[in-house]
Amino acid sequence: MRFTHQTLPQRVVFAAGESPAAVAAEFDALGGTRVMLIASDREKELADPIAEKIPVVLRHEEVVMHVPVEVAERARRAAADAGADILVSVGGGSTTGLAKAVAMTTGLPIIAVPTTYAGSEATNVWGLTEGETKTTGVDDKVLPASVVYDAGLLTTLPGSMTVASGLNAMAHCVDSMWGPRADPIDRALAQEGIRALATGLPVVAEDSTSVKGIEQTLYGAYLAAVSFASAGSGMHHKICHVLGGMFNLPHAQTHAVVLPYVLAFNASHAPEAEARVAGAFGTDTANAGLAALRRTLDAPRALRDYGMPEDGIAKALAPIMKAIPANNPTPVTYTNLTLLLHAAWAGDPIS
Amino acid sequence: MRFTHQTLPQRVVFAAGESPAAVAAEFDALGGTRVMLIASDREKELADPIAEKIPVVLRHEEVVMHVPVEVAERARRAAADAGADILVSVGGGSTTGLAKAVAMTTGLPIIAVPTTYAGSEATNVWGLTEGETKTTGVDDKVLPASVVYDAGLLTTLPGSMTVASGLNAMAHCVDSMWGPRADPIDRALAQEGIRALATGLPVVAEDSTSVKGIEQTLYGAYLAAVSFASAGSGMHHKICHVLGGMFNLPHAQTHAVVLPYVLAFNASHAPEAEARVAGAFGTDTANAGLAALRRTLDAPRALRDYGMPEDGIAKALAPIMKAIPANNPTPVTYTNLTLLLHAAWAGDPIS
Repeated sequence: MRFTHQTLPQRVVFAAGESPAAVAAEFDALGGTRVMLIASDREKELADPIAEKIPVVLRHEEVVMHVPVEVAERARRAAADAGADILVSVGGGSTTGLAKAVAMTTGLPIIAVPTTYAGSEATNVWGLTEGETKTTGVDDKVLPASVVYDAGLLTTLPGSMTVASGLNAMAHCVDSMWGPRADPIDRALAQEGIRALATGLPVVAEDSTSVKGIEQTLYGAYLAAVSFASAGSGMHHKICHVLGGMFNLPHAQTHAVVLPYVLAFNASHAPEAEARVAGAFGTDTANAGLAALRRTLDAPRALRDYGMPEDGIAKALAPIMKAIPANNPTPVTYTNLTLLLHAAWAGDPIS
Repeated sequence: MRFTHQTLPQRVVFAAGESPAAVAAEFDALGGTRVMLIASDREKELADPIAEKIPVVLRHEEVVMHVPVEVAERARRAAADAGADILVSVGGGSTTGLAKAVAMTTGLPIIAVPTTYAGSEATNVWGLTEGETKTTGVDDKVLPASVVYDAGLLTTLPGSMTVASGLNAMAHCVDSMWGPRADPIDRALAQEGIRALATGLPVVAEDSTSVKGIEQTLYGAYLAAVSFASAGSGMHHKICHVLGGMFNLPHAQTHAVVLPYVLAFNASHAPEAEARVAGAFGTDTANAGLAALRRTLDAPRALRDYGMPEDGIAKALAPIMKAIPANNPTPVTYTNLTLLLHAAWAGDPIS
């Protein structure tokens, strides 16, 4: 037990159906006076009731995926021109990301109101895109001061999207067990995240409007983001990153397919992770828990279904070997990695 | 699921046997230049190796239990006279408490190096005593910026003291399940704390010099403090506070005796807490887990063994009824509280 854990300051509010009042309370607590409200046109209806309760001096609607630098610059200038002293974002990862870009240069506090399970609201990580190049960094100024989770804002998301995002959050939790900076606090929070996701996702898959299912999933996605940001990217995310880039695979499906193979690969050499994941699922083994959830959710099974060629396995080996953190519980060799990738490619049952 | 959780910023370092280097690293990270080192004469030997690695401009040794105001004032003046810009405390709750008293008025950051399981280092709560009156309050300025846990500094504590403090930390964890502000994040952290304490305490009880046992216990005590400070005082602490004050009972023993009765009292109406506590102990029920640990540790059994008179039960009822939070899972009546107190007084087996 030798670690340094940095706990970041944040207020997290769960208030299903009551985001307008909750945002107003956070606004008061932060001592804001002039709000820049960031919400795309798509989130207008969700943002309107919130806007009614706070003094909005500027509504900013230009939200673009991956936060292009020129979009960030326009938002920063708009914030300055309007004399805003607090940012309220209502939306998914791109909306939160734009608020972070403004906070990075202005130091303004953010109240984030997520409308997806992206998790960006719970981290101090920012991302900006210039042309084709995405740059990310860490800056405590971009961590939202408050997050208001209102499950009522996610009832119109299709269940399939919730399941895809939820399994992505699950992958963050599992990878937090052995990421390069993983410590017991990260693992405990990730364990709680797995428990929440395993509780919430089947409910939402059955009824995409269930507030109870959504709030459990939101809670799990929040914990996934907190633990993953602290623990760092582990074997699972390194594999998915290489495969996704090399074969242009769909993000959520790639994660959903690869996760059980990495869990099985590492669990035997990571008894603490194995016990935590199994405990979170309430099953005898970690693999059994994830397998049962995947069956319930009818999760994606094989990379070949998403266009990865079989000879891509050999091509991906070297870059994956290079990317996997040195502290990975099970030592990775070309042989065992080939077997893992082939099984994920074919959708073989976990041995 | 409706709650507001405030996560406080802190760096926590676990570095058994390496506190001098770890404190120096935290000192650098915080950008300090002139250290006021607070450590009583009793902790001199533990503090000396730390002092060697950082620029100490003042060593302050006047540490007094409950932090009398005049002691705090002298320390504050000494800090100003020495031009200190960072506080390093090496010691137990009183030492951390004095550093907090200085931080409260000066705003100086604290690096806390605990030498007991008090947990004060992980909270934003301060306490000062004027004559017979103790005042406590909450101020984010007093939360240490960094905590360095070095299990090597606790190897000379008698095992019996570790067990007493550890059971006190256990009581903080259990009460965090249903404190007035308890939320799922508090419960998850408390659950992890119970797991760590249940792992570490039997090891330390067997061998008071075991670094592995001590660091698990320290980790559990840290989580107990974090969760309890957030959740607030629940039924268990309210009972112990009334009984302790009324009959001058020893603190640690009172907590150790009362805890299993309160757990049994609430568990049946608190399924989430029951599942979490049982899960943390790895037993079928919460009660079974705590009972097994108490047997291993040969924990105190009956309040009458510590001088509480039988007719004190009736006397304590009204003030306890008044103090128990309204959100307590099992509704409290004069009848069921009488039964609970009588069982704890006599040391009856848990039914």
